[in-house]
Amino acid sequence: MASAPKVLILNGPNLNMLGLREPQIYGHTTLNDIEESCRKRAAALGLVADFRQSNSESSLIDWIQEARNDQNGLIINPAAYTHTSIAIMDALKAVDLPIIEVHLSNIHQREAFRNLSYVSKVALGVICGFGAQGYLMALDAMAQQLIKQQEA
Amino acid sequence: MASAPKVLILNGPNLNMLGLREPQIYGHTTLNDIEESCRKRAAALGLVADFRQSNSESSLIDWIQEARNDQNGLIINPAAYTHTSIAIMDALKAVDLPIIEVHLSNIHQREAFRNLSYVSKVALGVICGFGAQGYLMALDAMAQQLIKQQEA
Amino acid sequence: MASAPKVLILNGPNLNMLGLREPQIYGHTTLNDIEESCRKRAAALGLVADFRQSNSESSLIDWIQEARNDQNGLIINPAAYTHTSIAIMDALKAVDLPIIEVHLSNIHQREAFRNLSYVSKVALGVICGFGAQGYLMALDAMAQQLIKQQEA
Amino acid sequence: MASAPKVLILNGPNLNMLGLREPQIYGHTTLNDIEESCRKRAAALGLVADFRQSNSESSLIDWIQEARNDQNGLIINPAAYTHTSIAIMDALKAVDLPIIEVHLSNIHQREAFRNLSYVSKVALGVICGFGAQGYLMALDAMAQQLIKQQEA
Amino acid sequence: MASAPKVLILNGPNLNMLGLREPQIYGHTTLNDIEESCRKRAAALGLVADFRQSNSESSLIDWIQEARNDQNGLIINPAAYTHTSIAIMDALKAVDLPIIEVHLSNIHQREAFRNLSYVSKVALGVICGFGAQGYLMALDAMAQQLIKQQEA
Amino acid sequence: MASAPKVLILNGPNLNMLGLREPQIYGHTTLNDIEESCRKRAAALGLVADFRQSNSESSLIDWIQEARNDQNGLIINPAAYTHTSIAIMDALKAVDLPIIEVHLSNIHQREAFRNLSYVSKVALGVICGFGAQGYLMALDAMAQQLIKQQEA
Amino acid sequence: MASAPKVLILNGPNLNMLGLREPQIYGHTTLNDIEESCRKRAAALGLVADFRQSNSESSLIDWIQEARNDQNGLIINPAAYTHTSIAIMDALKAVDLPIIEVHLSNIHQREAFRNLSYVSKVALGVICGFGAQGYLMALDAMAQQLIKQQEA
Amino acid sequence: MASAPKVLILNGPNLNMLGLREPQIYGHTTLNDIEESCRKRAAALGLVADFRQSNSESSLIDWIQEARNDQNGLIINPAAYTHTSIAIMDALKAVDLPIIEVHLSNIHQREAFRNLSYVSKVALGVICGFGAQGYLMALDAMAQQLIKQQEA
Amino acid sequence: MASAPKVLILNGPNLNMLGLREPQIYGHTTLNDIEESCRKRAAALGLVADFRQSNSESSLIDWIQEARNDQNGLIINPAAYTHTSIAIMDALKAVDLPIIEVHLSNIHQREAFRNLSYVSKVALGVICGFGAQGYLMALDAMAQQLIKQQEA
Amino acid sequence: MASAPKVLILNGPNLNMLGLREPQIYGHTTLNDIEESCRKRAAALGLVADFRQSNSESSLIDWIQEARNDQNGLIINPAAYTHTSIAIMDALKAVDLPIIEVHLSNIHQREAFRNLSYVSKVALGVICGFGAQGYLMALDAMAQQLIKQQEA
Amino acid sequence: MASAPKVLILNGPNLNMLGLREPQIYGHTTLNDIEESCRKRAAALGLVADFRQSNSESSLIDWIQEARNDQNGLIINPAAYTHTSIAIMDALKAVDLPIIEVHLSNIHQREAFRNLSYVSKVALGVICGFGAQGYLMALDAMAQQLIKQQEA
Amino acid sequence: MASAPKVLILNGPNLNMLGLREPQIYGHTTLNDIEESCRKRAAALGLVADFRQSNSESSLIDWIQEARNDQNGLIINPAAYTHTSIAIMDALKAVDLPIIEVHLSNIHQREAFRNLSYVSKVALGVICGFGAQGYLMALDAMAQQLIKQQEA
Repeated sequence: MASAPKVLILNGPNLNMLGLREPQIYGHTTLNDIEESCRKRAAALGLVADFRQSNSESSLIDWIQEARNDQNGLIINPAAYTHTSIAIMDALKAVDLPIIEVHLSNIHQREAFRNLSYVSKVALGVICGFGAQGYLMALDAMAQQLIKQQEA
Repeated sequence: MASAPKVLILNGPNLNMLGLREPQIYGHTTLNDIEESCRKRAAALGLVADFRQSNSESSLIDWIQEARNDQNGLIINPAAYTHTSIAIMDALKAVDLPIIEVHLSNIHQREAFRNLSYVSKVALGVICGFGAQGYLMALDAMAQQLIKQQEA
Repeated sequence: MASAPKVLILNGPNLNMLGLREPQIYGHTTLNDIEESCRKRAAALGLVADFRQSNSESSLIDWIQEARNDQNGLIINPAAYTHTSIAIMDALKAVDLPIIEVHLSNIHQREAFRNLSYVSKVALGVICGFGAQGYLMALDAMAQQLIKQQEA
Repeated sequence: MASAPKVLILNGPNLNMLGLREPQIYGHTTLNDIEESCRKRAAALGLVADFRQSNSESSLIDWIQEARNDQNGLIINPAAYTHTSIAIMDALKAVDLPIIEVHLSNIHQREAFRNLSYVSKVALGVICGFGAQGYLMALDAMAQQLIKQQEA
Repeated sequence: MASAPKVLILNGPNLNMLGLREPQIYGHTTLNDIEESCRKRAAALGLVADFRQSNSESSLIDWIQEARNDQNGLIINPAAYTHTSIAIMDALKAVDLPIIEVHLSNIHQREAFRNLSYVSKVALGVICGFGAQGYLMALDAMAQQLIKQQEA
Repeated sequence: MASAPKVLILNGPNLNMLGLREPQIYGHTTLNDIEESCRKRAAALGLVADFRQSNSESSLIDWIQEARNDQNGLIINPAAYTHTSIAIMDALKAVDLPIIEVHLSNIHQREAFRNLSYVSKVALGVICGFGAQGYLMALDAMAQQLIKQQEA
Repeated sequence: MASAPKVLILNGPNLNMLGLREPQIYGHTTLNDIEESCRKRAAALGLVADFRQSNSESSLIDWIQEARNDQNGLIINPAAYTHTSIAIMDALKAVDLPIIEVHLSNIHQREAFRNLSYVSKVALGVICGFGAQGYLMALDAMAQQLIKQQEA
Repeated sequence: MASAPKVLILNGPNLNMLGLREPQIYGHTTLNDIEESCRKRAAALGLVADFRQSNSESSLIDWIQEARNDQNGLIINPAAYTHTSIAIMDALKAVDLPIIEVHLSNIHQREAFRNLSYVSKVALGVICGFGAQGYLMALDAMAQQLIKQQEA
Repeated sequence: MASAPKVLILNGPNLNMLGLREPQIYGHTTLNDIEESCRKRAAALGLVADFRQSNSESSLIDWIQEARNDQNGLIINPAAYTHTSIAIMDALKAVDLPIIEVHLSNIHQREAFRNLSYVSKVALGVICGFGAQGYLMALDAMAQQLIKQQEA
Repeated sequence: MASAPKVLILNGPNLNMLGLREPQIYGHTTLNDIEESCRKRAAALGLVADFRQSNSESSLIDWIQEARNDQNGLIINPAAYTHTSIAIMDALKAVDLPIIEVHLSNIHQREAFRNLSYVSKVALGVICGFGAQGYLMALDAMAQQLIKQQEA
Repeated sequence: MASAPKVLILNGPNLNMLGLREPQIYGHTTLNDIEESCRKRAAALGLVADFRQSNSESSLIDWIQEARNDQNGLIINPAAYTHTSIAIMDALKAVDLPIIEVHLSNIHQREAFRNLSYVSKVALGVICGFGAQGYLMALDAMAQQLIKQQEA
Repeated sequence: MASAPKVLILNGPNLNMLGLREPQIYGHTTLNDIEESCRKRAAALGLVADFRQSNSESSLIDWIQEARNDQNGLIINPAAYTHTSIAIMDALKAVDLPIIEVHLSNIHQREAFRNLSYVSKVALGVICGFGAQGYLMALDAMAQQLIKQQEA
């Protein structure tokens, strides 16, 4: 692994509206802001961040499947698909990469139907409630995880 | 608001099959017929109807997000996604427009899994069981709502 | 049907308190205001509106049973009885008239026990969330329905 | 509030059978005995007790609605309607008075269907299991509450 | 018990519509027909049948309470109140008479919400599915029960 | 149908212990006593009673299947199999005979798992809580039913 | 019982934070204020109040067990342990004293998990929603109960 | 039907990963291998197999809708959408073709959320647990079904 | 394995009534017809079919246990016992043979209590909804399975 | 009770397969081994052990009923019928003998449907998880119980 | 293991009240009596019994953790904590000792909330319903278990 | 805030066994190791870490209450109390500090009863599945949070 390890950061439906949508829950930071912070933090950690968003369940699945070939880790904020997409869960199970799940808000304090996460059943770990900072925490954790793997 | 207010009318999966599919439940009217009636009624109400259908959850989400910029109201018949799409619910929550939910059939008289509507949790009002006429009722209600907003 | 068709409009418990009770949910319109609007809209549609309210489940049942003989359609806002009265549901099933259910508020956004409607199981269609305007929408729909029946 | 504050004390279905019915649960005191004790305690507290019983859900609703105009507090033992009447709950929500719920027996030790109380969702407080004495406790609490309101 | 024992036969909501309402479930017999048959069968059994119907829950409760004084047995077809009225159940518990529950249809073959009977929790026995004949079976059983009581 | 119609009366597990077992629930009458009464009542009604008991689910099924050929009606007290045997329910569905379900005790007043009856889903009618007399009531009802069938 | 009867008043976890914690639910009164009021009211009633608080489930159990020997009644506000401690319920069952349960807030209006009270299954009566006054009501009720016991 | 009947074989999300993904459950066969086998078996049966896969719910719906025009039967392995897609169920209901559901694994032995199949509610039959061979079994069954239809 | 492999085909309760019972669900084919087809198909596949039916749960268990010694595969249509017999499931778990479950009808489209199959938890695969043809499909699959085992 | 007390030891379905079936759960001991140990231990305790096994629910019921006449205690390992047989529970309730329930494995650590035991509702005590030794523990406990009865 | 193996016998909340508390369920034996019997039986089995009781969940956890170092087996009657303490379950999982769970009463015949045992999920075996004798049975079983371990 | 901000790090029951207990889930790191890492990371972040563990629910509550006075943030790994302690939740609600919840394992992949966290309902954010590293992530997040508060 001579070149910098790559980390795919996926964002689910409506996250492109961030900063515009329900700011009382999510704050005013936009998804571009988060992407920017992620790139910087990744660089600092010696990683390359590949940051994407889609409203489409199948695009997310496609990206997850492709990650198999050229990524070293996968961070995902599945947004609403967290609670409904067994297909994304199955895709994640099929890639042999460390997976970290991130949520901007503390989903345990929202509607009951947001308490179930299919993604949590296959993720290495889960981070929720820290807003945009959660992505950076996920990157830190991923860096540690990749080091641990290299050592193993 | 010098020009006529615009109302986006969204139709979910399989509604393009209307008139062909299970006519004992939905009758023989096609979606084109409904679009035609909607355009006429909208015109009569001083509104412009933008009528679309998609089988794709993400296309519906994309259209809802775009409505934010150039529509004044949103009427949606989410069909099967009514009961499964938290992502569409989240998209609707994020647009700051009056939303009216329409169903051709009386969903309370069908299978139990059609009783739950995620969309109802964010819609201004719900109309179901009136067939194609429900769309016209929704347009009438939207016209009233837009007048009320203008007055407020 | 030479004379104008008659439509019975029934209102369930506590609707007589309208305008006084929880205005943040129901607004300041009184039931008299709604009756007035209904009469006007009915007249405009060539219908006669017979508008009544009762806090008594059995009075509502009696009125529904009598409607059999001298009414052509029935609009009902069953209020709290929506969720608890199988007896009203049975009465409605026994009259051979088109039935339209109306709710002022969007009951899907209130307490969980307000999500179930026994009346929806026998109504032609349901309208909720449009405030007093919902009654007028119901009258419009009833007029359409009576025309359809005449044609059939 | 120069004259003595009035407190409406409502009793639900079958409480007129008190002393006759299931004495192993409710004891031998009759409803008249309770009324008598209430009047005396009310007088001692500077209150006027208006004590009524009905087997009819709608009579209870009517009385609750009227209380709005000429009562200062409302004590209710809804008996069987505790567990089934959303209409009584709605009526109570609509009167702007302090409401205290009383049960003769400890309903938490009886059948499971007696555990749910719609009235508790709108009452200031609940007293159960103290038999006839519970009414006097409710009057004491109401007197305190009315003093507190006057002070506020 | 020199004079003929009296049996109160109570009929719940909408049973006055019998013969008119959903004949595919209940047949064409009217409630008057049933009353007539009951009177005859009662006479043949040496009983007096007091046959009543009401759409009102509280009228039924009142009648049950009064039965305490001048009736020897109570047969009840609670119709829709079977499934919702704890108040009727409580009233029946408070009269010290043999109680027989009758249903025209086999309620176990209808909607799930008709499976629960509060009245069954206090009735001596239950007869359902035999149409109008069920009332006569109940009278036969009541006659046997009254003989047994006399012997005891 | 020149010869007397035959009625098969089936008794499920442990009913052979009747009179010995839990007399506080079932009384002291033995199954032989009941058989005797049934034969007499059947004779009086112009019927022949074929009375059997088995602890074996499959014997009961076999007998039900054979009833198809030489019986005119079927009365069954399925005892514990009431609540667990879909196989008996299926057998009963497959014989084209009127079926009456009898229970000695009022099963609605016993453990929750005795509330469900698979047999009720296919029986013409159900009689419970009348002890041994319930069998005679079932025979009376069966006689009526066979007359009705003959007339139809 | 020559000396004044003793009443143990137990307070569960976090009640020591009263007046500091969530004042919008519990007000600004501290537990010391309540203790003071209780002592005064007890004295006025001829009782001695032994007032204690603990965050420890086992301390509460120990105190309940000891109450057996030297107390005449027990008032308990179990706070969070209301909903989770079968051990406290068992301890209360084992002391042969009248038990009264008090809650400052109306627990039926809070989170669903606060609706279940194990303590209610063994308490004589329950008082909730009256704030600090509830303790005084409990003392009044306890005094009545002890008089009743003495008379019996 | 002079030309060979056409059978559309649809494969849902992540099946393109077959052979790579969780081989301990699905084995090493790839989806191409299955397509190859299907084509051969179809040819042997006088059928033409049109074999497709998509991760996109809406692509699957589109293909199902188009099948209406030019296919004679439809075999579907809906993968994760089996359990979540009412939209696919609705699409299948709308095409007037025999539908056979196939699963590689025995879904009844996996997570509870994989037990529910919306597709089973509209499929002619279901085959699961036979791995790739299940597709061939489905083709055999489809051939039989098409013969039966031709004969009818 | 020089001689032809033997396959035990077990049929549960009421399947002996096939062709007589509810033909709208199961068609007119009798169990003898199915046995005949199975023997022929088995022969064609180089297998010997041992075809049995019983209404008795214990006979089915006995046969399953014996299969251990002299059969090479087991096909079972457990009929009603599918949903209720843990004992049959346990017996199947204890024989070290490939097990295939067959149902004539699509059980997922019938009553809810037919959705659960204990047998599916131990079967290799499940085939349902193809009528008598399902048995032949099971034999084909069994032949494949036995070949696979031989090769392994 | 001059002769040695007799203890019936019943074993439910599939226990005859013990030692062959799922040894990782049940070990290699056969049922004959257990019978042998039981006879020895019974003799040592001055008891006679009557050890039987059946796959048939009705044989087990028959044996339980007969135990009434000539046995002094009953030990039962109901195996799969533990969880499904109300009929066995009813039979056990009807014999007036001490009943001890034994399970080889710790059923609380297996599938959820093995958590419910109908037999536990009527047994004196339950022993599970100790393998074959559990039978000997049951015999020890039975000996104690019979001594206690003799003394009482 | 030259010295006698040590067995820690833990008793949960309120067991110190034994003999005083609800004797109709637990009898008159005190915990001291049980300790005495345990010491004797342990000695007879060549074991040393370390018998303790605490009302404190954390003391029980502390003792379990310490058992790791100087005990050879652990018998626990967790009393009320059986049903609520995941923490005790976790502690038991962490000690590498054979664990036997004992209950004086048959918990399956008590309130529904006593049916669940967290401890059963980690115990080797469970004994309930045999009163104080259950402890001796547990010691016997523990002795056997320690022999088995020594042999293994 | 001239001196370094203090962060209380609380550890619930059995965490003192870390490294000894179920290493396949938690690894070999001891709680001392974690404390050491936390102190270092805290120092690096300009924080002071106060690291404690208790098996006692009430000690944890006491510490949380005290944190109010002299801590600036609170990190908690409530272990088993996560799922059962409303009392800890209430204590956390009452301190006006940022709260971060940490779990070593991904609790969403363990037993169902570990899915519910009362603590999540009051925590700012949740981190789970990252082992000991999760504590460091929590410290990082806390540092960020304290900076944010200072800025606000």
